[in-house]
Amino acid sequence: MKLHTNKVGAMSLESESLELHKKLRGKISIAARAKIKNTKDLSLLYTPGVAEPSRIIAKNRDAAYDLTNKWNNVAIVTDGTRVLGLGDIGPEAALPVMEGKALIMKEFANIDAFPLCLKTKDTDAIVETVKNIEPVFGAINLEDIETPKVFDIEERLTEELNIPVFHDDQHGTAMVVLAGLINALKITGKKKDGVKIAVNGAGSAGHAIAKLLSAYGIKDITVFDRQGAIYSNRPNLESHKAKIADITNREKYSGTIAEFKNADVIISATAPGALPHETIKNMHQPRIVFALANPISEISLEEAKKRGIAVFGTGRSDYPNQLNNSVVFPGFLRALLDLRVRKITEKMKIAASEGIAKLVSNAELKKGKIIPDAFDKRVVKSIVNEVKKSLN
Amino acid sequence: MKLHTNKVGAMSLESESLELHKKLRGKISIAARAKIKNTKDLSLLYTPGVAEPSRIIAKNRDAAYDLTNKWNNVAIVTDGTRVLGLGDIGPEAALPVMEGKALIMKEFANIDAFPLCLKTKDTDAIVETVKNIEPVFGAINLEDIETPKVFDIEERLTEELNIPVFHDDQHGTAMVVLAGLINALKITGKKKDGVKIAVNGAGSAGHAIAKLLSAYGIKDITVFDRQGAIYSNRPNLESHKAKIADITNREKYSGTIAEFKNADVIISATAPGALPHETIKNMHQPRIVFALANPISEISLEEAKKRGIAVFGTGRSDYPNQLNNSVVFPGFLRALLDLRVRKITEKMKIAASEGIAKLVSNAELKKGKIIPDAFDKRVVKSIVNEVKKSLN
Repeated sequence: MKLHTNKVGAMSLESESLELHKKLRGKISIAARAKIKNTKDLSLLYTPGVAEPSRIIAKNRDAAYDLTNKWNNVAIVTDGTRVLGLGDIGPEAALPVMEGKALIMKEFANIDAFPLCLKTKDTDAIVETVKNIEPVFGAINLEDIETPKVFDIEERLTEELNIPVFHDDQHGTAMVVLAGLINALKITGKKKDGVKIAVNGAGSAGHAIAKLLSAYGIKDITVFDRQGAIYSNRPNLESHKAKIADITNREKYSGTIAEFKNADVIISATAPGALPHETIKNMHQPRIVFALANPISEISLEEAKKRGIAVFGTGRSDYPNQLNNSVVFPGFLRALLDLRVRKITEKMKIAASEGIAKLVSNAELKKGKIIPDAFDKRVVKSIVNEVKKSLN
Repeated sequence: MKLHTNKVGAMSLESESLELHKKLRGKISIAARAKIKNTKDLSLLYTPGVAEPSRIIAKNRDAAYDLTNKWNNVAIVTDGTRVLGLGDIGPEAALPVMEGKALIMKEFANIDAFPLCLKTKDTDAIVETVKNIEPVFGAINLEDIETPKVFDIEERLTEELNIPVFHDDQHGTAMVVLAGLINALKITGKKKDGVKIAVNGAGSAGHAIAKLLSAYGIKDITVFDRQGAIYSNRPNLESHKAKIADITNREKYSGTIAEFKNADVIISATAPGALPHETIKNMHQPRIVFALANPISEISLEEAKKRGIAVFGTGRSDYPNQLNNSVVFPGFLRALLDLRVRKITEKMKIAASEGIAKLVSNAELKKGKIIPDAFDKRVVKSIVNEVKKSLN
């Protein structure tokens, strides 16, 4: 990429990205899998020859997996209400992000993903639209839709569609966190059935992290939102948070995260500054902290060192141990497509996390590394293998 | 394409096409326009860099045309209710046809078209779904949706969307017919304001042909459905046929097509056998007949010769003068995208037809050729040029 390197001074990442987007004018396009050079090609690939595969599928819908690109098509569906840290910027403005996502799926896992940024924020309309476009796709990827609406959308689509519905903001984040946690426990010698974990933030990420860690067998989890700890029967608790309360915080801790004591692990998916220093000071040694806010993490690498954190992970690419969804979603979607999964289970997600975690060698663990690089070519295959094994 | 050429005996076109579809397993896929090789690429093409183009589009939605692939994206929308001659075969079975269409758009006009085969036959649901997916696309191509429903869908979407809505079964067919007619009139020395034309069939094609020929300035057009000629105040006339009656058949002819006399041109878009020999016998000399049924035309080339037809066009690729939509839709959609057309007008369609017709040289006209080859590389450019001129 030639990016005005001859200009005086360094361009900011933002303006460099903008220039690149202007130049590309679209990060993905359609590719022809066959050439049409003459009338014979046209009559085989289009009319009248195409009538035969159509007839076969009309008799048996499943044949679309063998005669069309359905087996490899993923719809990236958003309403643009919760894009990056930018919030509700609308469907058109969400498109560069969704094209980026599609590009990653292509480059990392050879998936054919097409972005569908919807001009509606209505739950029923989103559900209906996705149901209507189902026939062409092998899987749905929900993306950057605001909570709690997205939980309802995901639940209804999972119930009503014949193809898997993946919500990366939940499942992707939870899987990469669990992968990192598996290795962080190895490094610190802690056991999953003994650790005390605080999850800071109860959005898509916090919600799914708590659910997956619980399914993994971690018993002592407390989730915090802006009001403090989430516990059963907290006054005015929203229904999706009540579900979290059902599987976490058995002791019904009702204080704030600043007052929370003796955590072994803190996983924060909130915003810069939202992780109080007291909380870290009150932690058990050795301290494991994942600060996932992006692009600026809740605490910096310098602060993490100053506060005696033993294992530190963030969403940032300029820090070690980047716990970014891009490590997991290409491989997990590849697995969903290749294995023709209909419904995603916690067991599959745990398998995927284990598939990622096992790629970090003992030598790397000793150096504090807990997660493979997003560019590690082994990741996709390892996820597919582990998810496949989990189906038996 | 290697197609079992070592097998004993010739394969039928149907089985050859089926084998090819099995081998390809999808005729289109997604292509990456950029490579992601390292963390820098990832941060420019995805987070955090991508936030900047998103912010720009959030301020001005139109910037999506410059910073994403919207400028070149076409949705091919069908409900699978009227696919080829196969009828209502469902959305999955329609997919091979729509992938073929997308392939042609890519190969002939570098358009990025994605098939959306909808799991609903309800007019309101189809309209809502297309409205919801609008943000990602530069144009909509409606395809193989049954009449009269499709007229309503097209009208409502044209009214409500900010991007053009093209219905190939109507507009594409009408434009290629007009292109062929322009040259057929040249060959036979007939004038557009004097010719008497019968249109046999009042589906999508017949409907749109009558409308476009009327806009082109042809005054004597009579359209026939199964009941006979369509005329104002015919008992129980459906509303879309009443619209045809308003612009055709001034003399209120009420007989059948078999009894129809002195036609200069017959354009049939019905089914094999649905064009009576009497009609042709009753025609003015020199006779111009377009028999568009596909894959088997209403009358054969042999019959056409036997019945003294001077200019004969069909939808068949194994006959001369193939009046197939594939001559027009790639170029017309290219024009819609490149010229950022919001609403399609009859004037644009006439311009496109003239752009196609003018590519046939005088020498070719003398040999009876009325339409350029679908593979003629000049077609797309000529359509874009003529449509562009028509906007001034």
